[in-house]
Amino acid sequence: MPRITRRSLVSMTTVAALAAFAPMAAFAQARPARNKVVFQVSDADPQKWNLALNNAKNVQDDLGSEDVDIEIVAYGPGIGMLKGDSPAAARIAAALKGGVRIVACENTMKAQKLVYADMLPAIGYVPAGVVELMKKQQDGYAYIRP
Amino acid sequence: MPRITRRSLVSMTTVAALAAFAPMAAFAQARPARNKVVFQVSDADPQKWNLALNNAKNVQDDLGSEDVDIEIVAYGPGIGMLKGDSPAAARIAAALKGGVRIVACENTMKAQKLVYADMLPAIGYVPAGVVELMKKQQDGYAYIRP
Amino acid sequence: MPRITRRSLVSMTTVAALAAFAPMAAFAQARPARNKVVFQVSDADPQKWNLALNNAKNVQDDLGSEDVDIEIVAYGPGIGMLKGDSPAAARIAAALKGGVRIVACENTMKAQKLVYADMLPAIGYVPAGVVELMKKQQDGYAYIRP
Repeated sequence: MPRITRRSLVSMTTVAALAAFAPMAAFAQARPARNKVVFQVSDADPQKWNLALNNAKNVQDDLGSEDVDIEIVAYGPGIGMLKGDSPAAARIAAALKGGVRIVACENTMKAQKLVYADMLPAIGYVPAGVVELMKKQQDGYAYIRP
Repeated sequence: MPRITRRSLVSMTTVAALAAFAPMAAFAQARPARNKVVFQVSDADPQKWNLALNNAKNVQDDLGSEDVDIEIVAYGPGIGMLKGDSPAAARIAAALKGGVRIVACENTMKAQKLVYADMLPAIGYVPAGVVELMKKQQDGYAYIRP
Repeated sequence: MPRITRRSLVSMTTVAALAAFAPMAAFAQARPARNKVVFQVSDADPQKWNLALNNAKNVQDDLGSEDVDIEIVAYGPGIGMLKGDSPAAARIAAALKGGVRIVACENTMKAQKLVYADMLPAIGYVPAGVVELMKKQQDGYAYIRP
């Protein structure tokens, strides 16, 4: 069996040290891998609803709709955006078709005695809009409040 | 003294490499360990004050008040929320009792010639509300502006 | 050539392991190294424009203007802040001189048929304000919507 020299030992420990750097590089590259943004709609103001939809469209146009995850969360006084009689209904249908996720807060619905049949079709639901906004930020989503 | 073989050397450098991976795992697990959220109150609008308090309550109800750190920062035109004559005084007292941290911006107080005796009891103070909101986000808090 | 003993081998692998920890420490220290904040201006409300400028000034006063990167992004209904006839023109000139970066959204300009000559001098431009707000958050900026 060959004797180990200092030189060969140093090269082997170098390998160990380089292996240790590998996960750092993987972590650093993981961050910008995916564009993600969550929009908060919490005002009873149709102009704000349109602004949120404009913003989502601009993000898709600029980054490519395949390359960005977009979610709109309506809660509190903003829940009207997602009711069946919403003036933004047509634009919401188009945004959903275009890949935007749009969710209503069930806490707000309970407080306002709204049931699913009162809401626009094809939207999603979350138990608490504000917790959804927290979780998305924890998951690396940028937060925009139009 | 026993001679070191290639095989034993490899196993020792493997130990070194594995040790190097350990802190990565610890880091990855540290992120979702604690739910934290900071609410900004900067409007002179009692409805917004109630919305912030509703939001804080919903977060506590959904995640468990022991399992989430909540702070409300009032500054600028929102400082009225924390003055002694605030219409939200009773709800603020309940939120403080329930573990929500509520702080007033001293920069705003100076600008509006408010002293501590003008403010609600048991609230906290920060030198600059906007810097507090920055620091909380740096510390991993989600940001919500009701 | 000297023979390698267990003791010397352990000390060498220890060096490799310590080297592996070094980048973690560097990463952990890199996070709070620089204070960065982006302000969103998206309301057609001069009081909001002044609040954003007050906020930026307070951050500079509190942290030192050399030690914080501040950017104000005006878009949508907030674009008026940066038009040539803006009531905030003098304060914007002072903020720019003080090191605040202030940018207008070109998407909004197109929608409102505004050209560069319609805007205040010395400001910057971004293709899409909302994408700029996303990117800044990805780059570690705190987000404040006054």
